[in-house]
Order: sequence, then C-alpha cells, then structure tokens
Amino acid sequence: MKKTEKNAMTAPSIPAVLPTVNARIYPKGGLDVLSRDEVARLRDASTGMHDLLRRCALAVLTSGSASDDPRAARELYPDFDIEVHQQDRGMRIDLVKAPAMAFVDGDIIRGVAELLFAVVRDLAYTAIELGKGGGRDLDSSDGLTDSVFGLLRNARILHPADPNLVVCWGGHSISRDEYIYTKQVGYELGLRGLDICTGCGPGAMKGPMKGATIAHAKQRKRNMRYIGITEPGIIAAESPNPIVNHLVIMPDIEKRLEAFVRMGHGIIVFPGGVGTAEEILYLLGILLREENAGLPFPLILTGPTASAPYFEQIDKFIRLTLGDAATSRYEIIVGDPEQVAKRMSHGIRKVREYRIEQKDSFFFNWSIDIPLTFQRPFVPTHEAMAALDLHHGRKPHELAADLRRAFSGIVAGNVKEDGMRRIEEFGPFEIHGDPDMMQSLDELLRAFVEQRRMKIAGEYRPCYRVVT
Amino acid sequence: MKKTEKNAMTAPSIPAVLPTVNARIYPKGGLDVLSRDEVARLRDASTGMHDLLRRCALAVLTSGSASDDPRAARELYPDFDIEVHQQDRGMRIDLVKAPAMAFVDGDIIRGVAELLFAVVRDLAYTAIELGKGGGRDLDSSDGLTDSVFGLLRNARILHPADPNLVVCWGGHSISRDEYIYTKQVGYELGLRGLDICTGCGPGAMKGPMKGATIAHAKQRKRNMRYIGITEPGIIAAESPNPIVNHLVIMPDIEKRLEAFVRMGHGIIVFPGGVGTAEEILYLLGILLREENAGLPFPLILTGPTASAPYFEQIDKFIRLTLGDAATSRYEIIVGDPEQVAKRMSHGIRKVREYRIEQKDSFFFNWSIDIPLTFQRPFVPTHEAMAALDLHHGRKPHELAADLRRAFSGIVAGNVKEDGMRRIEEFGPFEIHGDPDMMQSLDELLRAFVEQRRMKIAGEYRPCYRVVT
Amino acid sequence: MKKTEKNAMTAPSIPAVLPTVNARIYPKGGLDVLSRDEVARLRDASTGMHDLLRRCALAVLTSGSASDDPRAARELYPDFDIEVHQQDRGMRIDLVKAPAMAFVDGDIIRGVAELLFAVVRDLAYTAIELGKGGGRDLDSSDGLTDSVFGLLRNARILHPADPNLVVCWGGHSISRDEYIYTKQVGYELGLRGLDICTGCGPGAMKGPMKGATIAHAKQRKRNMRYIGITEPGIIAAESPNPIVNHLVIMPDIEKRLEAFVRMGHGIIVFPGGVGTAEEILYLLGILLREENAGLPFPLILTGPTASAPYFEQIDKFIRLTLGDAATSRYEIIVGDPEQVAKRMSHGIRKVREYRIEQKDSFFFNWSIDIPLTFQRPFVPTHEAMAALDLHHGRKPHELAADLRRAFSGIVAGNVKEDGMRRIEEFGPFEIHGDPDMMQSLDELLRAFVEQRRMKIAGEYRPCYRVVT
Amino acid sequence: MKKTEKNAMTAPSIPAVLPTVNARIYPKGGLDVLSRDEVARLRDASTGMHDLLRRCALAVLTSGSASDDPRAARELYPDFDIEVHQQDRGMRIDLVKAPAMAFVDGDIIRGVAELLFAVVRDLAYTAIELGKGGGRDLDSSDGLTDSVFGLLRNARILHPADPNLVVCWGGHSISRDEYIYTKQVGYELGLRGLDICTGCGPGAMKGPMKGATIAHAKQRKRNMRYIGITEPGIIAAESPNPIVNHLVIMPDIEKRLEAFVRMGHGIIVFPGGVGTAEEILYLLGILLREENAGLPFPLILTGPTASAPYFEQIDKFIRLTLGDAATSRYEIIVGDPEQVAKRMSHGIRKVREYRIEQKDSFFFNWSIDIPLTFQRPFVPTHEAMAALDLHHGRKPHELAADLRRAFSGIVAGNVKEDGMRRIEEFGPFEIHGDPDMMQSLDELLRAFVEQRRMKIAGEYRPCYRVVT
Repeated sequence: MKKTEKNAMTAPSIPAVLPTVNARIYPKGGLDVLSRDEVARLRDASTGMHDLLRRCALAVLTSGSASDDPRAARELYPDFDIEVHQQDRGMRIDLVKAPAMAFVDGDIIRGVAELLFAVVRDLAYTAIELGKGGGRDLDSSDGLTDSVFGLLRNARILHPADPNLVVCWGGHSISRDEYIYTKQVGYELGLRGLDICTGCGPGAMKGPMKGATIAHAKQRKRNMRYIGITEPGIIAAESPNPIVNHLVIMPDIEKRLEAFVRMGHGIIVFPGGVGTAEEILYLLGILLREENAGLPFPLILTGPTASAPYFEQIDKFIRLTLGDAATSRYEIIVGDPEQVAKRMSHGIRKVREYRIEQKDSFFFNWSIDIPLTFQRPFVPTHEAMAALDLHHGRKPHELAADLRRAFSGIVAGNVKEDGMRRIEEFGPFEIHGDPDMMQSLDELLRAFVEQRRMKIAGEYRPCYRVVT
Repeated sequence: MKKTEKNAMTAPSIPAVLPTVNARIYPKGGLDVLSRDEVARLRDASTGMHDLLRRCALAVLTSGSASDDPRAARELYPDFDIEVHQQDRGMRIDLVKAPAMAFVDGDIIRGVAELLFAVVRDLAYTAIELGKGGGRDLDSSDGLTDSVFGLLRNARILHPADPNLVVCWGGHSISRDEYIYTKQVGYELGLRGLDICTGCGPGAMKGPMKGATIAHAKQRKRNMRYIGITEPGIIAAESPNPIVNHLVIMPDIEKRLEAFVRMGHGIIVFPGGVGTAEEILYLLGILLREENAGLPFPLILTGPTASAPYFEQIDKFIRLTLGDAATSRYEIIVGDPEQVAKRMSHGIRKVREYRIEQKDSFFFNWSIDIPLTFQRPFVPTHEAMAALDLHHGRKPHELAADLRRAFSGIVAGNVKEDGMRRIEEFGPFEIHGDPDMMQSLDELLRAFVEQRRMKIAGEYRPCYRVVT
Repeated sequence: MKKTEKNAMTAPSIPAVLPTVNARIYPKGGLDVLSRDEVARLRDASTGMHDLLRRCALAVLTSGSASDDPRAARELYPDFDIEVHQQDRGMRIDLVKAPAMAFVDGDIIRGVAELLFAVVRDLAYTAIELGKGGGRDLDSSDGLTDSVFGLLRNARILHPADPNLVVCWGGHSISRDEYIYTKQVGYELGLRGLDICTGCGPGAMKGPMKGATIAHAKQRKRNMRYIGITEPGIIAAESPNPIVNHLVIMPDIEKRLEAFVRMGHGIIVFPGGVGTAEEILYLLGILLREENAGLPFPLILTGPTASAPYFEQIDKFIRLTLGDAATSRYEIIVGDPEQVAKRMSHGIRKVREYRIEQKDSFFFNWSIDIPLTFQRPFVPTHEAMAALDLHHGRKPHELAADLRRAFSGIVAGNVKEDGMRRIEEFGPFEIHGDPDMMQSLDELLRAFVEQRRMKIAGEYRPCYRVVT
Repeated sequence: MKKTEKNAMTAPSIPAVLPTVNARIYPKGGLDVLSRDEVARLRDASTGMHDLLRRCALAVLTSGSASDDPRAARELYPDFDIEVHQQDRGMRIDLVKAPAMAFVDGDIIRGVAELLFAVVRDLAYTAIELGKGGGRDLDSSDGLTDSVFGLLRNARILHPADPNLVVCWGGHSISRDEYIYTKQVGYELGLRGLDICTGCGPGAMKGPMKGATIAHAKQRKRNMRYIGITEPGIIAAESPNPIVNHLVIMPDIEKRLEAFVRMGHGIIVFPGGVGTAEEILYLLGILLREENAGLPFPLILTGPTASAPYFEQIDKFIRLTLGDAATSRYEIIVGDPEQVAKRMSHGIRKVREYRIEQKDSFFFNWSIDIPLTFQRPFVPTHEAMAALDLHHGRKPHELAADLRRAFSGIVAGNVKEDGMRRIEEFGPFEIHGDPDMMQSLDELLRAFVEQRRMKIAGEYRPCYRVVT
C-alpha cells in the first residue's frame, strides 16, 4: 500500500485526550482595523456568523494535523471558542480551549496568529460588504467579479508587482513520491522568483510552498507570497499550513475558483483526485471560449514519472470529448521539475507582455471572460443532470462546462451524502450523451478508483445511466 | 498693514501667462488598486464626478500658491484636465496642461503625486461606497459615523499606534508673527513625538507641520504623520501643502469635522477667522453634552502674546453665553510654545489611560457622543435662523449648538454669496435671543473685522435683528 | 551500507564535462566597500592571495555539490578564475568559466553571490588588517581575541540583539536518519526564535538551517541569521550552503573555533566524525578551567535514537579520563528534538542573565577565558606528541587539552598526508600516558571506524605506542 | 548693525545658572559595537583621550547654543563628564551634569544621542586604527588617503548610491539674509534629490540642511543624508546641528578637507569669513594641478544679491593672482537659488559619467590628485612665511597653494593667539612677493573687515611686510 505524504516534522500523532490552551492574541503590525459594527457582527450567534468564525478558526489552529476529516477537529476540541474584541490598539482575539498544537511553549505560532486574523478580516468583510444591504449587485457577472475583486483587495493581496504568481492545483492526499515532486517543482519555481498560490491545505497544496521557501531563502527573496485561497466548506478539511502568509477565505467555491483564475498568472496541475479533474474541466471550459481565444494562460499538467498514467488518461479523455484542438491549451510534462519551472516562467513572460499590450492590470485578470454560469453554483439534482447535453458537435467550451457538471454530479452521487441520498431515492441519474463519451468518462472514474484517488467503500458502481 | 504669512521658499509670484506641463504619473509603492468600475466612475462626466476630480486635482497641483481664491486656479489653468487609467501595475494618472509649479525640472514633486493619488482614492471610495446603492445607512448617527470610519480606514490612516495625534485648527490667513508661532508650537510638539493633523491649507494649517518636520528630523522619528483632512468645498481655497503625507478628502464639512474629533487625541486652536470661532463652538457643543462629561479631551487655545485679545474675546463670549463652567473644557496659553506642547502631551496621556480603561480604540474615538444634529449640515435660511433659541437658561451644549448655527448664518449673511442674496431679498434674519447675548456676539464679530480676521467690503453692518 | 544524506533537490549528478558560465556580479544593497589598496591585494598573484580567493570562491560556487573532495572542484573547473574590480557603485566581481550549478537560467543564485562578496570582504580584511603591518599584536591572547572580534565586526554579524545564537557541530557526512534529525532539531530551535550558526557545510551543518528556515517562515521571523563560520582549509571540502546568509572566513582553525565559542550562546553537538570528538574536547578543555567555572554555557549532545552509542562512547571516555565531574558541563539527549530545543532555550536564558549581571556583551563572550595554548595551532610532530602528558591526576582542563592534541595527532597519523608520511619515516608516535586511558582512546577510535565515521583504507592500525 | 542668523526655534537665551541632567544613553538600532580594548582607550585619562571625548561630547550636547566661543561651553558646564561602558546590547554612555538643552522633558533628543555615538565611534577608530601601531603608513600620500577612506568607511557613510552629495562651505556667522538664502538653496537642492554635506555648525552649515529637510519631506525622500564633517579643533566652536544625521570627526583639518573633496560630488561656497576664502584657495590649488585637468568638479560661489561684492572681490583677486584661466574652475551665481541647484545638478551628472568612464567609485573620488603638501598641516612660522614665493609666473596651482598658506599665516597673525604672540615677539612676517599681488591680498582682507567677516579688535593693521 502506498504511503501518503506525512511531514514528520509537523504532524504529531493524536493522543486520546488533546491538550488545549487559553490565550489572548494581538495582531502584530496591526494592519487590521475593524469597526464597532463589524466586531458586533462577528459575535452575533443568531446569524450563524459566530459559528462560522469558530469553525474556520479551529481549522487554522489545527493546521498540520494528520486528519482531513472536517468533523474530527470539532470533536477533538468540543469546548473550543473564539471571541473578537475591540481594543486600544485594535483587535484582540480571545481563544478558549484552543488546540495546544498551534502553540510553542505557550506562545502561539506567529504564522497561525496571522491566519486567525485573516479569517476574522475576511468573514467580517463578507458579512458586511457582501451581505444583505452591502450594496453589491450579486446577480450580474460583473457584480460577482467585483465582489471577488473587493474581497481580494481588502485582503491586501492585489500587489502591483510584475506577474509572478503560480497557482498550484492537485490533491491534498497524494503519494510520498508525488509530494516530493511538488516540493521539487516549488523549489525550481522559487529559484526563478515565482510566488505560489494554492488551496492551502496539505499535499500538493503544501509541497510547492515548502520547496519555494527554501529556494526563496537561497535567492534572498523578500516579500515572498505563499497565498492560500480557501472557502468555509473546504478550510476544515484542508487546514492552511502556516507557511501560507496570505490567507483568503472566499465566500463560496465559485468565487474561490474565480479568484484562482483572475489572480494566477499561470496554473500548474499536480496529480489529484476527481476534484482536480473537475478543476481542469472548469478551466478548459473558460479557456476554450471564443472570448478568451487570444489570451495567454500557461497551464501545465505535471507529476513524477510514476504518475504519468494519471495525465495520460485525462489527456485521452479531453481529446475524445473536446477534440485535439482543446489540448493546445495545456502542456503535459512528466518528471522534470526544472522544465516545468522554465516553461511556466516563459509563459508568464507572455502573460506580462499581453497585459501591457491590453492595458490590463498585472494583479487581476480583468480580460478573461468568465460567464455567469461558471460563477453560479451547480446543484446536481436529477433535473439538472438530465438537462446536460453531452454530444459531439457542441462547441468545446459548452461541452467542457457540461462535462464538468456531469463529473460533479457523478462524484456527488458516489461519495457525497446529499448525492448518494438522491440516488437511493430516485434511482440513477439519466444523462443524455453520446455513448463513447460516456464510456470514456466511466473509464476515467474507474482509473481514479484503482489509483486510490477516489475513496469508494466497496466496489465502484456507476450512479447514472446513459440516455442516447 | 499687516503682512500675511508667505513662505518665501514655496510661493512663486504669478506671472501673466502660467506655464503648464503634460505628464503621466504612476503611484510609487502603488498601494492603491482600483476596480474597473471605480475607474469608470471617475471618468464619468455625466455624474459630475469627473469635474469634481478635476477641481480637487487642480487644488493639489497648485499647492503653495499665494492665492486663496478657489476660482483663481481654474481661471489660471483653464485647459487643465486629468484622466485616471487602469494599467499593468495599477493606476496611471494623465495630466494635461497641469500647473508647472508642481514640477521640478519636469518631474512632479513626489509629495504632490501622492496627494493626487489620495484624491483619486477618496473620490472613488465616496462615489461607490458612500454613493447610492453603497449599502450604508446614511440617515442614522451610527451609520454616518460608520461612513466616516470606512473612509478613514480605506485611506489607511487608522493606525493602531499609541495616541499621539494633535489636531491644529486656526486661520489660513494669519499674521507673520502668528505663523512663526504655529511653527514653534509644531516644533515643540514634534520634539515630543507628536504627529500633526490639520485642515491642510496654508497658515495655521501649514506652520505646525513645518515645525514638526524639523523636530521629527532631530528626533529621528520615522513614520511621522502630517495628516490633512479636507473636503471638496474647501480644498480649492486651501490647497494642501505637500508636507502633508496623508491627505483625506471627506465628502462634506460635517464628516470632516467628525473626522477631526474622532481621530485627534487633542486639539490646539490657533488664531483664525470666524470659521475658527465656529469650530470652537462646534467642539464645545459636543464636549458639554452630558454623555461626554467624563471624557478627557485636551483643548488648548494658543497664540503669540500679540494675539492674546483674540482669545480673550472668545473666552469672554463663552463665559457670558455658556457660563464659566464651559471654560473648564479648554485652556488658554499665550506666548509659550513649550508649555502648550507639555500640556498637550500630558492631556494625551490621560486620553490614553481612558481609552485603555474604556476598551476604546486608540485610533478612533468611538466613545465620544456626536448627535445627528451635528452630523447633518445647517442651511441658514430665514426660517432656520428664526428657529434658533439663544436665551440664558438652556442647557449649555444646546445653546452652544444654536450659537454655532447663529454664527454660521451671520457669516453667510455677510460674506457668502447665497446668504447675502437672501438678506437682500428677505431683509435681515430675525433671531430670538437675550439681548446681552446678542450684543456680545456682535462685539465679537466687530473685533474680528477690526483684527482683519473677517473680510468685509466697506463698513460692517449686522445682517440680523434681535427679537426678544 | 548506510546511505549518506543527499539532498535530492540540490545535488545534481556530475556529468563528464561540466557546464560553465562567465558572469559579472554586483553586490545588492552594496554594503561592501573596498579601498583601492584592498582591491590591489586581492588581485596580487605574487602573494598567493589571488589563488586563495580563487579557491574559496570556487567552493562557494560549487555549494551543494555531492563531492566533499577539495581537489575535485578544482579539477572539474580547471579554467575557473575570479577578478575583483573597483567600480562606480562599489565592487564588481568577474567570473570566468564558473560552475553553471551556481546559476539559474543564466543568473547567479542571489545567496551564492552574497557568499562570494563575503569571501572577498573577509580575505581583504585578513590580508590588510591581520596581515603584516596591520598593527595587531598576534602574539598575545588578548591580541588574538581582538583580531577575532575585529574580523567578526567587519563582517557585521555582531548584533546587539538578545542572545539567541545556537552553534551546531557535527559531521558533514552523516546518515539520512541523522540528517533528518538535525532538521527536526533545527525546526524546533527555529520555532523558539533561535538562530543557527554552523561550520556551514553539508550534513549536520545544513540540516539545522533547513529546519529553522521552515520554522522561521511559520513564525514570520525576520532578520533570521544562518551564520556559517569556516576557514580556507575547510571551505573547499565543506562548501557553504546558500541558506547561509552570513558567511565568515576566519584565517585559521583556531580563530574559527574561538569565533564559535565567543559568538554562540549555546552549542549542540550532533553525531560526527573524529573532528567532532576533537571539538568536544576543545570545548571541555576551556569550560573545565577554573576561570570559567561559574560561566553558564549550554552544551547538548544529541542525535536520533539509533545514534545513542556514539554519545555513550564519548561520555564513557570523558568519565574515565576527565572524571565524572566533567560530565556536568554537558547534557545528552537522545531522540527528542523538542526537548533539545527547550533545554537550549532555557540554557540561553541563563546566559542572558549572566551577561547582564557581568556587564558582558550579548554578542561576544568576552568573559570566557581561552588561553593562548588553545589559540595557537598544534602541529603533531613526534616531539609534540611525546611531550603530551596523559596521566590521571592532572587538572581536568589540562588533561582535556592534551587529550585533544593526542586525538588530533592520531587522526593525522592515520588519515592526513603529512601525518602518515611522518609515521612512515619515524615510526609510531610515542605517547606518555596511563594505559587505561590510552586503551579507552583506542576503543573510541575503533568504534568510529566501525560506525564508518572515520575513513580508513584497509584495517585500522594504531599509529602510536604507549610509553608509561 | 547687522543681525546675525539666530534660529528662534532652537536658540534659547542663556541664563546665569545652566540646568544640567544626568542620563544613561543607549544606541538605538545599535550598529555601534566596540571592543574591550576600544572602550578602555576611551576611558584612559592618561592619554588625553578621555578629555578629547569630553570636549567633543560637550560640543554635541550644546548644539544650537548661540555662542561660538569654544571655551564658553566648558565654563558653563564645568562638572560635565562622560563615560563609555560596554554592556549587554553594546555600548552605554553615562552623562554627568550634561547640558539640559539637549533634552526634552528629561529625554535626550534622539539626534543628539546619535551624534554622541558618532563621536565615540570616530574617536575610538582614530585612537586604535590611526594611532601608533595602527599599521598605517601616515607618511605617504596614499597612506593618508587610505586613512581618510578607512575612517569614512568605518563611519558607514560611503554609500554606493548615485552621485548626489553637495558639499556646502561658508561662514558660521552670516547675516540673516544670507542665512535665508542658504536655506533656499538647500531647498532647491533637496527638491532635486541632492544630499547635503557641510562642516555641520550653524549659519551656512545649517541653512542648506534645513531647507533640504523640508524639500526632502515634500519629495518623500528616504535615506536622506545630512553629513557633517568636523574635527576636534572645530567642533567646539561649531556645534553640530542635530539635523546632521551622519557626523564624522576627522583627526585634523587636512583630513577633514580631504574628506570634503573626496566625498563631495560638487561644492557650493556661500559667503563666509577668511576661512572660507582659504578653503577656496585650497580647492583651486588642487583643481588647477595638471593631474586634475580633465576632472569634472562643479564649484559654485553663490549668495544673495546683497552679498555680490564678497564674490566680486574674491573673483578679482583670483584673476589677478592665478590668471583668468583659473576662473574657469568655478561659476558665480548671485541671488538665484533655483539656478544654483540646476547647475549643480547638471555638474553632478557630468561627474557621474566621468566616474563610470574612469571606473572610479561614486562614493570616493580616488581619481583626484591631492599631493602630500596639501595633506600635511602648514604651521605659519616666520621661516615658513618667508619661504613662500608669491610671484607672477609660477604655475597657478603652486601659487594657489602658497597664497593659501600666506592667507592662513596672515589670519593667524591677526586673530589667533599663537600667531599674534609670534608677531609681537619677532615683528611682522616678511613675505616675498610681487607688490601688486600683495596689495590685492591686502585689499581683500580690508574688505572682509569692513563687511564684518573678520573679527578685529580695533583698526586693521597688516601683520606682514612685503619683500620684493
């Protein structure tokens, strides 16, 4: 059996009774200044805001924990609580029965404290600016993009520096070889002065940052950015590593994906689970739009030599469904971290030229067209699944969008509580599609199961049937 | 005739034809990041926003000019224009036919460029966040205070440092002796590590900053703050001096006054015109409220020995109208800059203790009670003036508020275009008040005229009559 | 066979023909300013200074290379040359046929460039200030200490900060488990805000720095110091890792040892070869002096559980030779990185208190007594070896000093060219000592050979005989 | 009677009994690290070092005092003492009965504290590095230049930045109009990003720094340098103003002059006394050497319109003695601060180009040839004066050198204690020179007396006679 990545340094074993600490935390540098109203909202139990704050804070405080079960932390620290106070020099955070693992000899790890303050900042912003009466038009595509921009700006990560931000996607539970490979890629990116942005959990989301940290130290880089973009539903399962020095909590998955796409100057995809495949389809759905035809956007799929099959299957699937032309949008590099970094570096130079030419900003990709359908959540009901149109002959970007949705629904039907319940109640989804396309999708899923990239209890059984 | 303060170094004489420059300005450090929507609003001629931007920008660019006539600059630079662009590293400002006096050998003075970017930042914020659909409740006192807080936070001047901000009020057109005195006070404040906040024009608004600059250099102070708080109606007449390193444009006079009161840890009043007297009454109207009874708020009236009469008259007027008790809220110090700084320093230490005790923030005085009537503008119609109630026996803070309004109306009737027109049309205001109080007010105004602190063409004639 | 530590990220395999690069390097920040005379000396081939510069520079440029053979680099890059130039903004370094491994896509790794400038700075200082006519009294103990101080001050690493510098000693060629352990200890030290100082080569000299780098990132530590102290005879075999951000080249081994002892606030000894054992004896020889009796100096011997025997043997040897009392000067901790860091942290707090009490500086341990015999090199001739006095009953510190010399001579006789030649010519050393002591020494050496910590071609044969 | 410059802000009137303060001063940032030996030397009363330290420290602490009498300070603070201690974080300075004027509410002005530490640093360096056994060759021109370089480098003012350092010379006791003019020139220099270096006393040595401080604030310049270069014989009479943020104490007048010439990228001469005229001749003596023929060196003589006669006389004298060609080395600008700054800015650009071309450093003018005779002190004995050769036909640079010496001797004979005593004893100096040249010199001196630039008790009587 393959051993999954476990950092011997940071992952303590979990004893039966977990030690806790009470503490008062003050921001260092103290850039974060809240209004009376914002503090009040964060303490308001009636709106669910306090519970949300509590959950996100706990995730940050259990960073580095071996578990990826979101409920685990809450059960292990049942009496944990957090309170935000207004005080002379600004904010104060009081922690009650907080996980001792976030502390060293009684003092909180400074990086963890920073992440806590980021949580408070983003939840306060979301509650007030993006809440009811916040004055934003959250029904239009432009309005939604503006809200993504507003939240990122408030988090102070829109820096007017030269393009250098590489988004890394991939699984949080990968093999040790794959993890080491992500570190090596991060190291080569870091040597070239590139910053890292990930979903900020473990695995492929931590490796590149660790590698880059060592390389940045060697290059004497200052102001290096290790950006983690998460959202309340994910943060608990994928605790941000404290190397992350800029954490942003987006309000939902769609805004999180848009943040990746608008902030990143290039994207590297490491091996991952089905979620990673879904992200690839999301991105292709956008890049294959005519509006984005001329837009440079370096996209590299990479892993160690042993992981080559993962990308071969994805590549094969894309060729069959979206056509060979679709594959021009990405590059697959196997087992060559230096080459990955060189190609990404080269791609980002092209992005830079394009932005200057188009008078677009370096720090936010206003030019890329993301339609409303990608900004709104897809809920995989039987109706929604039956409405998908998976036939050859459609425009690739539309097909990509529907494939992503099909994917999302099938995953839900197999592993998510909600989806599994629907299948039990109403029977398998009916999907309209060409048989070869559906068969290819099926093969891809089976391969993931075999590679242990998709956790299935018992044998894999498709949760859908094809209606041609 | 008294010579008014003129800085030989910065005030060039104005030739018949004024040289202009076209230039592109980029922010240094580039903290200011605008959204596409914000840039669009600033360029929108239909909303008057572009004209507002143009006027404020011109004021900043003619900083140091000898003239205090707001129309002058626009007539002297009729073809001046400004455009804000979104660009790779952020914002770019294009200036067309801009005053050459803001440039040195073709390069814009860096401080002037910073002020320009502050103008853009604040107008954008006001247009979007405080505009229609901005989601703020601008009808409640709390909502208005929140909007003041929001704008100041967006301008990044709410620093969680120890209390050290001294607001200096006083005339922009004062005698040379008075100007030198304001420099000396600024120097003594600066030696004690205090920062300066003023209305950011010339005279008493520039002197303290210049003095503090020299003292801060001697004390090797870093991060010194010379904050200027202005509003669109004032900025043109009182161009910000480029020593100002934090400029904020509040949307209106009331928010500007609230900003002074909530940010300053103490206030020093130098000799000034009638506006200064009005400001004193505004502040007393707030400080004399029962809600603010225990609140420490150092308030010092000071000037050189020759200016003693100015404060004696004001003091006398306050005693007669608001009672001796009212004078406990301020201290008058004449001809002793060191003592002013020591007393202010001592007063601010008390403020610090009080904030810690009350768990109030150092950077924003949430505790001070400012009622809605002080937050809303007073328009001196005949009706409004007739509604004033200037009789002994009222609560001092209510009387102070009405006195301030009476003052404001009388000044308008004498020197403001609108007010003068109303008087011509409808005759003098009728004011209900006790005769001794009205007579005292009259004496005060006559003294200002004599001291050349109030500009009247011809002889001074009261624009009101008392109805007892 | 045990696998020695090899960093997969930085250690490329060595091809037959090695790529080279020509480059011009400029200091960043440019603190290093040389005089005309200093530049001339560095270029002077007649004094050997240019050759010394060339060798040290090559060592820095091949940092991370897998080889620890000092001749290897010179053979692999036979045409390498370096020239120092005076230029407008200061210094310029021209590299000819320099190892390509120090470059990323044609640009030198910034950390490597910094190390190059450190080499130039220290060699220039040594040539002029510590050279003939430099005015220093290099024959007295105080004069030698002053020269160590002068060189360190010139290198700008004497910071008046709180004591936090941990010197780590240990082998450059250790097992993978031992290497990981040094990283874990470095990580725990880093979490506690401690800085690292080592001999700056690979193995136990790199691991603690890498671990601390990750921990410092998590703790958002700025101004972290990874100090490497080396000397011309060692640098080639133990190339400084570019994580080292303060490199100092001391003129000889004795000054290097004195620099460790006077700068470090505590010392951790990891498993190492015979050199490490010699260093332990050097330190005990100093700490056991009466003059240093009350001086706190935390000294921890530590390694992973599997390395326990190494320290047991050393401990046993010390007890037998120097007595049980000698062991009170150190602590052995096995397999517990967190405990090591806690104990070191605690020990350094004691050092801090002592320095304050004694009015000694935090950054240079003036109080510790290092006699002239420890400052002068020991050359293991037959005469010198015969003069050693290894009998029970001597004062422990004198015995420790002679044991260290005996050790040094025996090592030379076994593995150093000079020593081996002497043995061949004159027969084995004659050493006067008590038989039990000599036997214990012999056992220790045999254990090292077995543990592969001492490289012997063929079977180990003692190069000395005991004369009782 | 003309009023001399007196800064109303900083110059307190001197009461009969002067208040004193005892204090302990610690360096901030703490860059200054002394060795045990250096601390001991500074405390050594037997060498005169302690007395020297005491005198220089007192000068720094009485900065801003109205008096320019070096003995005054010592008489006013007879019990003042200073002790330097080695301590945990570095140095500590204990002050006993120190002038209260250097303190604000009991705390030392930070800039004054910095100057104190500069005094300690430079005296320690001079005592050890330039003292006996310091290993420097102080008999050769190169050796002397090296010692100037060494001291400046140790003071950390040799920055590898773009050339921007303007040396300002001129009198410390000038008219108010002249003082304001020096401020205006400083302001215009500061607007152009230029830094200021002066002899660091009052008058023409303070004005440019104050003007530049305001301009640098407007230009948001960071790392601005206000360098003061003094020497023990001068510092007491010309206390450094605390705006000076880099103070250097050179060991003697000749090294101080060399420091000005090698560090400055251009020199501005304001009106001054005879000392200023002597400095002009010193500089011309160097610039007119053939070795320096092609070397760009901007030299501007400037003052307000009313001071035109001063420069006319000097110009006339130079034309007559050194020839019209000599005047090509300087430019006279009257009453136009902006033009002065523009010309200096332009001149410094030429210097920059030349240095790049010649591969000379920006921060130290190695190229300029300063012969040994200019580096050694001139003592005006009757023999030395009789040896001067003031005849037409000599090489201008040699004549300039002798003229400077003649000047120096005559001044001594008129106003210095030593010189006056010699004249009384041996009668007037006999000077060999052409009559027209001597007459011109005489006229120049008489003009200085009339303009009150030379303090003579009673009528001016020449202290020399001409031997043709």
